[in-house]
Amino acid sequence: MTQMEMARKDQVSKEMKIVAEKENIKIKALMKKIADGKIVIPASTLHKNLSPIGIGESLSVKINANIGSSPDKADLAYELEKLKVCIDAKADTVMDLSTGGDIDKIRQEIIKNSFIPVGTVPIYQAACKVEDVVELDENDFIEGIRKHIEDGVDFITIHAGLLRNSVPFIKKRLMGVVSRGGALLLRWMVYHKKENPIYENFDEILKMAKKYDVTLSLGDGLRPGCLKDATDKAQISELNVVGELTLRAWEENVQVIIEGPGHVPLDQIEKNVKLEKKVCHGAPFYVLGPLVTDVAPGYDHITSAIGGCLAAYYGADFLCYVTPAEHLGLPNVEEVKEGVITSRIAAHAADVARGLDGAITWDNNMSKARSNLDWKKMIELSINPSLAKKIRERCTDADEEVCSMCGRFCSVKMSKRAINED
Amino acid sequence: MTQMEMARKDQVSKEMKIVAEKENIKIKALMKKIADGKIVIPASTLHKNLSPIGIGESLSVKINANIGSSPDKADLAYELEKLKVCIDAKADTVMDLSTGGDIDKIRQEIIKNSFIPVGTVPIYQAACKVEDVVELDENDFIEGIRKHIEDGVDFITIHAGLLRNSVPFIKKRLMGVVSRGGALLLRWMVYHKKENPIYENFDEILKMAKKYDVTLSLGDGLRPGCLKDATDKAQISELNVVGELTLRAWEENVQVIIEGPGHVPLDQIEKNVKLEKKVCHGAPFYVLGPLVTDVAPGYDHITSAIGGCLAAYYGADFLCYVTPAEHLGLPNVEEVKEGVITSRIAAHAADVARGLDGAITWDNNMSKARSNLDWKKMIELSINPSLAKKIRERCTDADEEVCSMCGRFCSVKMSKRAINED
Repeated sequence: MTQMEMARKDQVSKEMKIVAEKENIKIKALMKKIADGKIVIPASTLHKNLSPIGIGESLSVKINANIGSSPDKADLAYELEKLKVCIDAKADTVMDLSTGGDIDKIRQEIIKNSFIPVGTVPIYQAACKVEDVVELDENDFIEGIRKHIEDGVDFITIHAGLLRNSVPFIKKRLMGVVSRGGALLLRWMVYHKKENPIYENFDEILKMAKKYDVTLSLGDGLRPGCLKDATDKAQISELNVVGELTLRAWEENVQVIIEGPGHVPLDQIEKNVKLEKKVCHGAPFYVLGPLVTDVAPGYDHITSAIGGCLAAYYGADFLCYVTPAEHLGLPNVEEVKEGVITSRIAAHAADVARGLDGAITWDNNMSKARSNLDWKKMIELSINPSLAKKIRERCTDADEEVCSMCGRFCSVKMSKRAINED
Repeated sequence: MTQMEMARKDQVSKEMKIVAEKENIKIKALMKKIADGKIVIPASTLHKNLSPIGIGESLSVKINANIGSSPDKADLAYELEKLKVCIDAKADTVMDLSTGGDIDKIRQEIIKNSFIPVGTVPIYQAACKVEDVVELDENDFIEGIRKHIEDGVDFITIHAGLLRNSVPFIKKRLMGVVSRGGALLLRWMVYHKKENPIYENFDEILKMAKKYDVTLSLGDGLRPGCLKDATDKAQISELNVVGELTLRAWEENVQVIIEGPGHVPLDQIEKNVKLEKKVCHGAPFYVLGPLVTDVAPGYDHITSAIGGCLAAYYGADFLCYVTPAEHLGLPNVEEVKEGVITSRIAAHAADVARGLDGAITWDNNMSKARSNLDWKKMIELSINPSLAKKIRERCTDADEEVCSMCGRFCSVKMSKRAINED
């Protein structure tokens, strides 16, 4: 039985217990939301040693880090190093997007070495087998999905909502299709003059997902790749299809996450989140960014932290990290770490702003340490203690009570003295 | 005559002409807003070779970079290097916050070498003269201000709104007073049991400011230094005083900017901006951050970009940068540059979201270059071309048409091909 089916049948799973404890919420409330599809626990029954997490309404905002090889850089050890960096930096999930080298081996090793949920995009599996995606037949796409599911991934992205009737809208775009999976499918559909094979075989996919309780992340093949394309007819047409597929999945007790944009101007973020929640019946929303400007390659961890924080504040549940290498190349280990930490900042700030119980305690503890000029504690409580320590030590002698920014004009010290003497 | 007086008397200054052209707005509309105090042109008549800018309602969001020595690091050449970095990275203004070394010389050289407006916090001038700020008399504060004005600074921060009746509210805070100027004044006021000398001598200060058209930046001595203290009685009590002082300044045709928080949870940002605009009668709002979490030293350029972008979207006009060294020490040149660029990202994203005429053109041009896989153009249009180039070159061979993230699965290329073949 899937977590959803168990919740609907009022059966408590060990995963639910763990999630309820992690999130400090009542198990009944959690189960109600799992039953309603508003919370998912992505936990394949084949993934051993998984520490389950919940994603969705009323829970803390989660963040995902993408790792994986490319044809240019395919090195299992390096991917496992990236995995370790993600886990150490406290990513909630990882996705293995490998497209180079022995991708089966890489995926299997990542699952084996990860106690956090692992996601994949199985269409890459299919596409890697051939020179040109059009060489594949419908069955290849399905078998790619089956392979990933049988390897024990916890969630898979499938671009089931991109249909042929969206093509006229795509043609009006500045950036076309920027999702790799979406572009692969589009090319296949146009070439073969056929409908999306993932959509056509959705019932079969539901059966496979149900068997091991793999969560479906309904991909946004038509997410906007630039501000100008945001919230356009192409994007919305796909979202509407995804909304219908959500209900079909729920009928089969299959857990669902909805993927969302992308590049979105700040003023359209609230609208995008509310639209997803409405069209997709409250299913958890997983956003890539959104990036609030197109002009900052090298800083897209920041452009996406701005958009992601606001999206999460308005109700997005799950943020996919973006690294400083976005739009330029495959990230290295340092950039992976930067991406995870920046996403965590966005997620945490949103948790605080949403009034999540206990979220602000971390901030308050940091501020107490600051107020006490307790540098050891400040470093320890920092989101990246090693970086905070490094900057502090570069700037200021270790035995200094204050910091080099204000020196003897330290406001914290002066203010305290004044108040004490009043 | 000040810009405000000229605007009120319907006289067009050469500064107004330049600003109207830079912002691509009608001179009459600009003058109306200057007359009403909603836009300032910080331009001391003593600052030669200044290229004037406008700050305020309906204009593009501006960003300020703080530079300046500290007792630990007092080096004129290094400060001039920071100035150059700020100008090259396209800061709109700089503030010299020097507190170490020959601060008169540093300030004078910064003004001489800066074609962008220069601001200062004159209370540091006074405080640097003595071991303990309580040794100063009222006149010392005023003479510090006079000195800076006569050196040709374009705007000065004065903490005129921090009054003794706010002290009980300060005592309830977690972080007390985190503004250096605010803390210096608080200590002086408590020790001498006197009211704020800047407030008491406000008329005299107006006279000095008026003489050379120095814009007053009414400082937020009681800005919150942590999320918990945000939008509290201390902060609001000062804002109310500042609102009254704004009207007094305007009576004398003195231009005014209002400084704002600080550390503010995301959900309180809109409220903070709207409150300032109401209480301070539409005067331009200059925010330091706001930082949306306290837990990320080393990343406070990011926590403030999140808050600053949202604040600017809601109507803040001027963002003070924050560097990665915030809360840890005095920033170095690289951190100054990071701070400026991160602030510019926030300001630009807000311009786009506010629908500022032409703002999105930059994004659209970048996206066109992306769609054409025109790497030369993408690098050129990047907010930091040298960083974008560096990451691209690390990741991908120079002659590669695509990037190493997707390699042969490049969605841009595949999507284009599909659309062309349909």
